[in-house]
Amino acid sequence: MNITRRGILQGSTVVAAAASSGAMGAGRADRTERWGLYEIALTGPASGNPFDDVRVSATFTCDGRPVRVPGFYDGDGTYRVRFSPPDLGLWRWTTTSNATALDGQTGSVRAVEPGRGNHGPVRVTRDGFHFVHADGTPYRQIGTTSYSWALQSDAKCAQTLATLRASPFNKMRMCVFPNVPSAVTDPFVRTGPGAANWDPARFDVAYFRRFEDRIRALCDQGIQADIILYHPYDEKRGYSDMTRADDERYLRYVAARWGAYRNVWWSMANEYDAIKSKSVADWDHLFGVLVAADPHDRLRSIHQINTYYDHRKPWITHASVQNGAAVLDDNRAELHRTMTGKPVIFDEVCYEGNSTKRWGNLTGEEMTERFWWATVGGTYVGHSETTEPNRNADFSWLGQGGSLAGTSAPRLAFLKRIMEEGPGTGIDAIQPWWGYHLGGQEYAWYLRYFGQEKPDVWQVRLPGKGPESLKRYHLDIIDTWNMTIDRADGHFSMARASDYDVHDFNRPSIALPGRPYMAIRMVAV
Amino acid sequence: MNITRRGILQGSTVVAAAASSGAMGAGRADRTERWGLYEIALTGPASGNPFDDVRVSATFTCDGRPVRVPGFYDGDGTYRVRFSPPDLGLWRWTTTSNATALDGQTGSVRAVEPGRGNHGPVRVTRDGFHFVHADGTPYRQIGTTSYSWALQSDAKCAQTLATLRASPFNKMRMCVFPNVPSAVTDPFVRTGPGAANWDPARFDVAYFRRFEDRIRALCDQGIQADIILYHPYDEKRGYSDMTRADDERYLRYVAARWGAYRNVWWSMANEYDAIKSKSVADWDHLFGVLVAADPHDRLRSIHQINTYYDHRKPWITHASVQNGAAVLDDNRAELHRTMTGKPVIFDEVCYEGNSTKRWGNLTGEEMTERFWWATVGGTYVGHSETTEPNRNADFSWLGQGGSLAGTSAPRLAFLKRIMEEGPGTGIDAIQPWWGYHLGGQEYAWYLRYFGQEKPDVWQVRLPGKGPESLKRYHLDIIDTWNMTIDRADGHFSMARASDYDVHDFNRPSIALPGRPYMAIRMVAV
Repeated sequence: MNITRRGILQGSTVVAAAASSGAMGAGRADRTERWGLYEIALTGPASGNPFDDVRVSATFTCDGRPVRVPGFYDGDGTYRVRFSPPDLGLWRWTTTSNATALDGQTGSVRAVEPGRGNHGPVRVTRDGFHFVHADGTPYRQIGTTSYSWALQSDAKCAQTLATLRASPFNKMRMCVFPNVPSAVTDPFVRTGPGAANWDPARFDVAYFRRFEDRIRALCDQGIQADIILYHPYDEKRGYSDMTRADDERYLRYVAARWGAYRNVWWSMANEYDAIKSKSVADWDHLFGVLVAADPHDRLRSIHQINTYYDHRKPWITHASVQNGAAVLDDNRAELHRTMTGKPVIFDEVCYEGNSTKRWGNLTGEEMTERFWWATVGGTYVGHSETTEPNRNADFSWLGQGGSLAGTSAPRLAFLKRIMEEGPGTGIDAIQPWWGYHLGGQEYAWYLRYFGQEKPDVWQVRLPGKGPESLKRYHLDIIDTWNMTIDRADGHFSMARASDYDVHDFNRPSIALPGRPYMAIRMVAV
Repeated sequence: MNITRRGILQGSTVVAAAASSGAMGAGRADRTERWGLYEIALTGPASGNPFDDVRVSATFTCDGRPVRVPGFYDGDGTYRVRFSPPDLGLWRWTTTSNATALDGQTGSVRAVEPGRGNHGPVRVTRDGFHFVHADGTPYRQIGTTSYSWALQSDAKCAQTLATLRASPFNKMRMCVFPNVPSAVTDPFVRTGPGAANWDPARFDVAYFRRFEDRIRALCDQGIQADIILYHPYDEKRGYSDMTRADDERYLRYVAARWGAYRNVWWSMANEYDAIKSKSVADWDHLFGVLVAADPHDRLRSIHQINTYYDHRKPWITHASVQNGAAVLDDNRAELHRTMTGKPVIFDEVCYEGNSTKRWGNLTGEEMTERFWWATVGGTYVGHSETTEPNRNADFSWLGQGGSLAGTSAPRLAFLKRIMEEGPGTGIDAIQPWWGYHLGGQEYAWYLRYFGQEKPDVWQVRLPGKGPESLKRYHLDIIDTWNMTIDRADGHFSMARASDYDVHDFNRPSIALPGRPYMAIRMVAV
């Protein structure tokens, strides 16, 4: 018996094949989109502790390439294997299990062309510093954070999703474990009334099912789910202080359960260095477990408070950094690329809002400014907002989601438009160590940002030594706060200004309006 | 027969024990200072190619701790083993060699208390971010670079040493291989008239002996010799493009020959990434060779042009960085510590002088400014100067040494004095990601620098949450260019200003003279 559920992933197809022993015949193959989610459902043992006692996986093979996909127990004797085919074609599968009922099942699924809106998972670009969907569509990260939004009531979650639909945000950082008052708080089966009375060996499958509904809802909206696996804010529950064996079981469970959703990213921890029960060696070990457990090879990083994790380590796909000062200067931001050799996302740069804490009281202007400096430095930023009537960030967008009261979001949408109109290969800092403060791609597209400066004039000088630097450019004066773009008349025709620079001899400078938050964009004609 | 030569290392003792087969009896032990240089001279084979054919080492043992020290061939049938005893006590030694005449020699040397001026080699501090001599004396790096000074005429070398004596510089970066016109240019035995006609398997021992005279002269002046083992500026000779086997022979030779000088540091390369014949894997391999060949475990780093080497790698003791922009902002400088976890020296930040190149035309003010920002960021800087009548830096201090024409050196001496009056544990950035721009040690000693700003007033606010922040401070207004220190009357008695800051309620600010290059120093009473 095959059950086909369509449209659960927007522009995609989820196929669930419910197999029981010997039930899979030589019938017509299931179909799913490339990068969609295909699920095998199997019936097996329900006694004992299936989370520990039963191992099941399926090996998918297409054109001789096998992918072994671990499955997971979903309660009531049901086991599932979820697979997102990386390539078009017919994928034949065979299950392996230590439970006879789950072993040796076979079937096949044909991965067909993805539908509209399905661009595949996000990967790191070939140059190593940006992001791109598997189908080649650039992914220009404008992140936000709402730690426990997914754990709120259905109504509140719907409100959060509506807010996101009207926003520029295409990545959501979200915790598996609650960090603020939430509607659901028990990822594990409870064993008694106290906060710490739960069984790390038994997952509450309803909790995880509910969470993946939120992952899928984000996917439907084209938003990446940056899933925070551990955080230091639940001391009284201790979810981040489990034993190594419990941590390994947990990571294997989430990887099997959620890794096939194409919008999943793994954030191993928020403020890892504030979790005192784990050492760097522990984190390194857990990354090894996650890599081995995740055949979909989703993006992986870890976020710090004080002590930077070494993002050069091979299992890290991009740097996730907390640093509010680094994004007040394009050079500081760029140094993170230089020193990690990877894409950099400043996932926490202080938040817009009214918190009494110094980490949560930026104006909309200050929030927006951080995005612009980081962009010129060739890096990416995450937003969030603390605004709350009682100035308690736990109940704000940052903690629970809901609605946004701030002023940065429309400006970030404006920035996103500038990025989308920019080079498909991303914005890189251009000769950053020589004081130009330019981002873009040489001889094609330049962005200069002035932050809180209020210049009346800018010397229109670009670095360049060879004949390829003698181009003609349009010049746009951008008010990043008021969201206006004024194109200067005519062109700037570059000629040699010095051994290192070019300029237009007849037009060496451009007047600016003396306001803050201005930018210049120059595009080769 | 023992030959004792005294006073070659200032405040130290060099003992040369000339042993021949069976000549070392049970006589009185030689003596040398702890951290001094003890040398065993042995007579052995002179035929064939002793550099390749003969291996000799001595194992020194004191209190059961053996140190195996490789020796080297010094021409004319003479072999030497050089050892700098790390601890006081009687060190007994036995030689091992594949040449009978060099094998099984024994002797002993007593390491006695070091004399005045001998503070031992420089090591990394326990906190991981600063430098200290082995005897506990802080080492506050104020570096300079003169690539080929040691390869100039004796007269020019004497002039360079005299210039250094009158300067604040306590580290000299210097190349083994010539990079500019030099009096000596042949580290290897020549095999023909062309630049590339030399035998990598045969060292010109006179070249190396002459070079170590310069190392020793620097040691006598208390100056660290940061020996650059490879550089990309001798393409026509190809010294940096040898085969792996030749590179290994070379590294083992310099480690055996020079590693016992306590002022030696190893800079694997200048602008390693401009040496196209070697990959990062090659450099990693060569570090492994160097570590194995150097029982004295001297400091090790490598310097880049564009692509930062990963200074987190375990064989790197400190980051050596070229970046002129990073030292125009204390935060940028500090990020290098955060991202390497090691002491950071910006060994190239552009140079003071009159070069037509953008890397060599800083004013004295600009050179000095870079040192101050880096200092507040908890890091160190290297100076050099390009000034030359024909604006050809090859013939300047940077290339050949000689004299200095610039204006920064006295200001760097002034800065060094400030550092020496500061915390013995070094200057660290204080809450650098929160916009204070303060260096020092919390609740004890603070430095604020303003660079090219011309403030009329400074809000005297220090970060601090607990009662330990409620101290009284002296405040000095420092003109870093005019080298004046003006102490403000009375004290600043800190009281709580906010959740995060303290200030003196009666004296929340201090007037400043509106000049550039000012600094504030606050010292707890």
